[in-house]
Amino acid sequence: MAYPPIGKVRSGHAGSLGTPVQPRFAQGCRGELELRPELAEGLADLEGFERIWVIFAFDRSAFQGLRVVPYRDTHSHGIFATRAPARPNPIGLSCVRLLGIRGNILDLDEVDLLDGTPVLDIKPYIPDYDAYPEARAGWVDAQAVRQGPRVADARFEVGGI
Amino acid sequence: MAYPPIGKVRSGHAGSLGTPVQPRFAQGCRGELELRPELAEGLADLEGFERIWVIFAFDRSAFQGLRVVPYRDTHSHGIFATRAPARPNPIGLSCVRLLGIRGNILDLDEVDLLDGTPVLDIKPYIPDYDAYPEARAGWVDAQAVRQGPRVADARFEVGGI
Repeated sequence: MAYPPIGKVRSGHAGSLGTPVQPRFAQGCRGELELRPELAEGLADLEGFERIWVIFAFDRSAFQGLRVVPYRDTHSHGIFATRAPARPNPIGLSCVRLLGIRGNILDLDEVDLLDGTPVLDIKPYIPDYDAYPEARAGWVDAQAVRQGPRVADARFEVGGI
Repeated sequence: MAYPPIGKVRSGHAGSLGTPVQPRFAQGCRGELELRPELAEGLADLEGFERIWVIFAFDRSAFQGLRVVPYRDTHSHGIFATRAPARPNPIGLSCVRLLGIRGNILDLDEVDLLDGTPVLDIKPYIPDYDAYPEARAGWVDAQAVRQGPRVADARFEVGGI
């Protein structure tokens, strides 16, 4: 399956080191999503949504194996039981806050995406479909993990350690 | 960006017509995700999660233009303000219920995916990162939409209308 990027992210995060691992930990991290101008009409009515899903390419990570120690834990887990970037298909998913839209530019907050990240798709966040606040979350529910690091290091970057 | 499928879905949904438009409307729709056997180790510790994200290819839809009338509404919206399959990059996102794992097979409920759907990635559903139950949801918040159809028709299928 081949997907040309539909746009790219502009953010203050030049590399993984120190970048929040999720939008939840990125309050105040403003950024922009620059959509290819010829796609701007596809943004019609998106402005009424408070949050959007950004599906993107982890373009600075490389697959390292089927078990990883994720940023927030000290134990290894299967890669599909984590949100780590170094996946067999390095596709990322972030639920960022939409502040506004100017033509083909989306103004965002809570941005955990690296500057230059290629964007594959944008979807509206719809609580009826996406919010399951009570869902059990395996190893992530452990108290030690919930108190774990909220920013990334370079472990998953190409040539990063 | 090129992503070979990591597996495929087995479900009772042979085509769009009559298939629930989201997992929320698919209670009791059991299915399986058959991961490529050589990737099974990547499922370690996933079983503790109640739900998973399936990122998949809408392999039976074709892009039809930047505005669409989605299943649940009678008005057109920009494609990025909808979850419709006929996207510039036809990538789908479903939050299904994980019942269990047997080797490289994931047993699922609330499956809104068509039989044979190619899977691009699997991620754990983590409420801390994914659940924003109070987020405003634009046109989807309208009462008429909330009472709209909960199953799909063939409008987005290749050769479907």
